[in-house]
Amino acid sequence: MALRIALDAMGGDKGPEEMVAGAVLAVQGTGLSVTLLGDEARLKAALSTHAYAAGRIEVVHTSQVVAMDESPFDGIRKKKDASIVRAFALHREGAVDAVVSAGNSGATMAAAIRYLGRLEGISRPGIAGIYPTLKGPVAMMDVGANVDCRPQHLYEFGIMAAAFARELFGVERPRVGLLSIGEEGGKGNVLVKKSHELFKKSSLNYIGNVEGRDTFQGDVDVIVCDGFVGNVCLKLSEGLAEAVMSMLGDEIRKSAKAKLGYLLAKDAFASFRKRVDYAEYGGAPLLGIKGTGIVCHGRSNAVAIKNAIRVAAEMVAHKVNDHIVELLAHDNLGDLLAETEAGGESP
Amino acid sequence: MALRIALDAMGGDKGPEEMVAGAVLAVQGTGLSVTLLGDEARLKAALSTHAYAAGRIEVVHTSQVVAMDESPFDGIRKKKDASIVRAFALHREGAVDAVVSAGNSGATMAAAIRYLGRLEGISRPGIAGIYPTLKGPVAMMDVGANVDCRPQHLYEFGIMAAAFARELFGVERPRVGLLSIGEEGGKGNVLVKKSHELFKKSSLNYIGNVEGRDTFQGDVDVIVCDGFVGNVCLKLSEGLAEAVMSMLGDEIRKSAKAKLGYLLAKDAFASFRKRVDYAEYGGAPLLGIKGTGIVCHGRSNAVAIKNAIRVAAEMVAHKVNDHIVELLAHDNLGDLLAETEAGGESP
Repeated sequence: MALRIALDAMGGDKGPEEMVAGAVLAVQGTGLSVTLLGDEARLKAALSTHAYAAGRIEVVHTSQVVAMDESPFDGIRKKKDASIVRAFALHREGAVDAVVSAGNSGATMAAAIRYLGRLEGISRPGIAGIYPTLKGPVAMMDVGANVDCRPQHLYEFGIMAAAFARELFGVERPRVGLLSIGEEGGKGNVLVKKSHELFKKSSLNYIGNVEGRDTFQGDVDVIVCDGFVGNVCLKLSEGLAEAVMSMLGDEIRKSAKAKLGYLLAKDAFASFRKRVDYAEYGGAPLLGIKGTGIVCHGRSNAVAIKNAIRVAAEMVAHKVNDHIVELLAHDNLGDLLAETEAGGESP
Repeated sequence: MALRIALDAMGGDKGPEEMVAGAVLAVQGTGLSVTLLGDEARLKAALSTHAYAAGRIEVVHTSQVVAMDESPFDGIRKKKDASIVRAFALHREGAVDAVVSAGNSGATMAAAIRYLGRLEGISRPGIAGIYPTLKGPVAMMDVGANVDCRPQHLYEFGIMAAAFARELFGVERPRVGLLSIGEEGGKGNVLVKKSHELFKKSSLNYIGNVEGRDTFQGDVDVIVCDGFVGNVCLKLSEGLAEAVMSMLGDEIRKSAKAKLGYLLAKDAFASFRKRVDYAEYGGAPLLGIKGTGIVCHGRSNAVAIKNAIRVAAEMVAHKVNDHIVELLAHDNLGDLLAETEAGGESP
């Protein structure tokens, strides 16, 4: 099946030209097609500087943009001709199979829910962050869409991210851990303790609590947390990795010998950067919607966009959504979820 | 005033000999005295291998230890002769001015509260984590003692960490930020939004929400969060810093040229490690108790212990506790705190 992915070409800090370059890379050597949404004149001008297979990239003109700092809900309500809104409208019509955007991630999530709706059995769609580790990648969910969560929501995040990890990481029974502050099940806040009981009863390959330091060891495939904690972790990791490299750079620049050493080790630094680069996975999948979406970092370059488009296509080809629905139906924890809700999670 | 610091010599992964070495370093070139608590024979044997000013280090024999994986409350209740329990009992008697321990941090906190009690006006003592940044250090509080918090608790953490930062970092009006997932005051979970309103009314130099990525930039002196989020951040940072260095090491070892480069840049790497080493601040201060305590990392070496002892002494000399009480009294938010409580913080 030839898949067609919509790319919000007005999203991202680097401008539409970078998005166009990403689309061109994405269609090379694959059967994929891309629909670019944005200012037609600008996109066509950018496309004219590239060589690509005719018909594989098309442009749909849109006249509005939801800005990065704009309220997501206001933005998508007021701007019916915004690139991100039109992209999900096309997805609903079946004209495209997935949407990729490096624009306002809240607006992307809001448009996805408004135009596609929630997947059967999912009360809270969310965003999974993909981190590199010492071994394979790990999916942390939620990383920002849902800040105040109940145990049911964490359970749903676990199901969704496990379905994603199974299909995208190729792990038959992904190991699912609950992010907490001690490995024993009794440790954590009220939300985590109640969620722990739900996970124990699920059919997931639940390995119990994991701690922040386990995130990068590669011994867990899915880490579940609420969107507040997940978003803090995401930004802390970014900030720390940058600070570490910046401090190391400062020290190296202090001596001529160290600078020479750095030059000799430059390829190793480059391989290292590639290994930890967020661009490798392209972006963070939106999970729990009746369709497929990927939110990319605002700073995404063409390679990140290419990778995000390819991951979106893989999600469609591997029917990640069907697997989510199956996992939920198999567990059938409905009554238990309702009970846990009733218990509340206030301290 | 000559200060005397109690050191739980049975705490820490490296054994009592490392603690003894830390105590010897701590008294060198300072007016400090140290009381070591633990197995007398073993501690005296270790001391006999060092040279130090007579009378500056004394040993108090204790026959029990609260293990790292033991329940803090059970541990301190059942083991009256545990080194950490006896240390705080000495502190209560006035025989020592502060307690330092690299043992079970929960037991240290529990013993501190049981033997010293809470500082006037503080409902939840906590632990401040000290991070290096691109500029000065930053104190994040709470990093583990309080997992389910109300706005009042976060406000108290802000007051306590600000008093600490003023005295220990030498910043007259420490900048206090609330850890959230967006810089605007309207962003965050319910706890953060309600706490934001309290901080706005306080006399603290409150700069609003900060994000995870701001942690290491050095543009904020105090970051306030609940103990669940803070502990996850602490362990995530540790794990990420280790993973980054491990991945970089892997890449360097792959080529002879890069290995040579690393040798040339070795001093720069060493300076970098020193700059980010948790040992530089020695440990994490317990704040909100009627006394002074520092919890050190289990892996603490002698240098970390020395630094922790010196920081404990500085906290006493600078009367950090008096400043906490003054800041609280000056704000006098009593009624407002009660109101915010009543509002609850459930989603």
